[in-house]
Amino acid sequence: MQDNAQGNARPAVTISAVASAAGVSVPTVSRVLNGRSDVAPATRERVEALLREYGYRRRGAVAPAPSGLVDLVFNDLDSPWAVEIIRGVEEALNGEGLSVVVSAIHRRGGTDSTRKWLDTLGDRASDGAILVTTDLDSFLHAELQRLNLPVIVIDPAGVPDLEVPTIGATNWTGAVAATEHLVEQNHRRIGFVAGRPGLWCSRARLDGYRAGLDAAGLAFDPSLVVPGDFDYASGFAAGVELLAREDRPSAIFAASDQMALGVYEAARQQGLRIPDDLSVIGFDDLPEASWASPPLTTVRQPLSEMGMLAARTLVRLMRGEPVESPRIELSTKLIPRASVRALA
Amino acid sequence: MQDNAQGNARPAVTISAVASAAGVSVPTVSRVLNGRSDVAPATRERVEALLREYGYRRRGAVAPAPSGLVDLVFNDLDSPWAVEIIRGVEEALNGEGLSVVVSAIHRRGGTDSTRKWLDTLGDRASDGAILVTTDLDSFLHAELQRLNLPVIVIDPAGVPDLEVPTIGATNWTGAVAATEHLVEQNHRRIGFVAGRPGLWCSRARLDGYRAGLDAAGLAFDPSLVVPGDFDYASGFAAGVELLAREDRPSAIFAASDQMALGVYEAARQQGLRIPDDLSVIGFDDLPEASWASPPLTTVRQPLSEMGMLAARTLVRLMRGEPVESPRIELSTKLIPRASVRALA
Repeated sequence: MQDNAQGNARPAVTISAVASAAGVSVPTVSRVLNGRSDVAPATRERVEALLREYGYRRRGAVAPAPSGLVDLVFNDLDSPWAVEIIRGVEEALNGEGLSVVVSAIHRRGGTDSTRKWLDTLGDRASDGAILVTTDLDSFLHAELQRLNLPVIVIDPAGVPDLEVPTIGATNWTGAVAATEHLVEQNHRRIGFVAGRPGLWCSRARLDGYRAGLDAAGLAFDPSLVVPGDFDYASGFAAGVELLAREDRPSAIFAASDQMALGVYEAARQQGLRIPDDLSVIGFDDLPEASWASPPLTTVRQPLSEMGMLAARTLVRLMRGEPVESPRIELSTKLIPRASVRALA
Repeated sequence: MQDNAQGNARPAVTISAVASAAGVSVPTVSRVLNGRSDVAPATRERVEALLREYGYRRRGAVAPAPSGLVDLVFNDLDSPWAVEIIRGVEEALNGEGLSVVVSAIHRRGGTDSTRKWLDTLGDRASDGAILVTTDLDSFLHAELQRLNLPVIVIDPAGVPDLEVPTIGATNWTGAVAATEHLVEQNHRRIGFVAGRPGLWCSRARLDGYRAGLDAAGLAFDPSLVVPGDFDYASGFAAGVELLAREDRPSAIFAASDQMALGVYEAARQQGLRIPDDLSVIGFDDLPEASWASPPLTTVRQPLSEMGMLAARTLVRLMRGEPVESPRIELSTKLIPRASVRALA
């Protein structure tokens, strides 16, 4: 498509050649290139010396950003998180004179679709990439390493042990705060609708709920925990199940706002009013939380701020500056609205 | 930032030079360049001959797309429409091997901010632009003409008489359908919460409501029309006002989903249940309409399809093909859910 001057300037030296010369693994070289601090100083020095010797050009560290483009990549754009993150990233990069290319990998398209997208990415010489992911695709991740782009992951789901810097939120702490809020309003039977199984953020929110109960001296009752997958329909089903019991809970904490809205509808269909007959708390603070009736008390996950921080951190990597920590978590915050009532 | 080979290939000949040589206005030359059909054939021929003679290069018509980038431009990314449109545009352009740069003009930044963004746009040699607008900024519009980019406007608000092809939705017809639906359920006192004043889509929705009443032989009662601005808070205020009356309406049709959700909350605060005590219809069918409790009956505006059509039409313009019509409206559709009940 273009007479890619940037493309020709790309290094012929591969990371794996440097790794084998240094006697370290490819991921270790990646860690050095990505500015990670978890590499022994002696190893870092050896790898950096070889990178220089082999003439390996760390993009952005030598010359100013060549294309002015940064890729922001989602698995799918139907995540309710997407627009909040786009807004934060766009705002931060706009200030740096950089432009944001938004892509959805179209997971349903499989590897072929991902490869096609990677070819496009290679053609236009992006300066860096921000991946937003709940499930990190290892193929994608390896390919991006191969393209030798600075990469940051915005990871609301809390995938640990990535090879690249990640930005997350304090899921566990937020769940503790939500549970404590209900306990302070004298709720003793608190149902929990869990997030998608297998994601770390789901585990962290469940553990936070347990810790909140524990701190209040309340026993954990596994029968009050109902599985969900973050989506509305699963919250509705969980609400139907919890509210059908004779000893139904007086409050339900759902691990996402959409599931909390599903609980609202389950309550309405059983003739229960919120908050009079049931208190509800969500998690995320998407715009629809404040448009719910009654407005939903929830735990705010600062998605646009996470986008801004990811963008600023990426710019530092593009300039060849190291980052302090491989993972940064921004704090969550309880936002009290009108869906929780104090029991006597 | 880059050694812009594309930039050097840009025409030195200006549209205004061609216009004055042809004895026509600058907008007329733009219409020819934008493939509009509302130019007299003789005029079109004369202008095209001069464009050839002057060596004016219509970008994309002569060579394949040089940068592979298309700009998608919003006033602000906090519109609830944004992510739906991004998804449609991204999906259609991805299939063409094109990448989507998403920008917010940051209206609060004023002309300086817009100019800075235009400079960035010029630097990276975008192949075309899709503007999403409720208020067309005439400065921005003139500057984009000057850059000589193929431009399409996605215009949910219904701004008429743009110089570029626009994609909209059938606002009037959708409002007729919503009103007819309420009438068929035997509602006779139907309140209306209007959209932001001064926008054509607001007028079209109000006129559709009046036409629907008229077709049913119901008198239009101006006291049942309350102003709004599309946002939640204005819907809440309008709901409070309409429901405080002794002769309160049995149904309220709000010109946006967010205002309809505001009406929900106004009803709840007055102890009224939806749909038992009040029927409500919205407009847009954003995701939150189906997450409302009860799920909101609304008029679907096909935002992602509008995005896809805009993208496909832009690709045709980039190839130098004319488009059939300067404005295309996609149909809206009533989506019955659970917020309307039949009166006896």
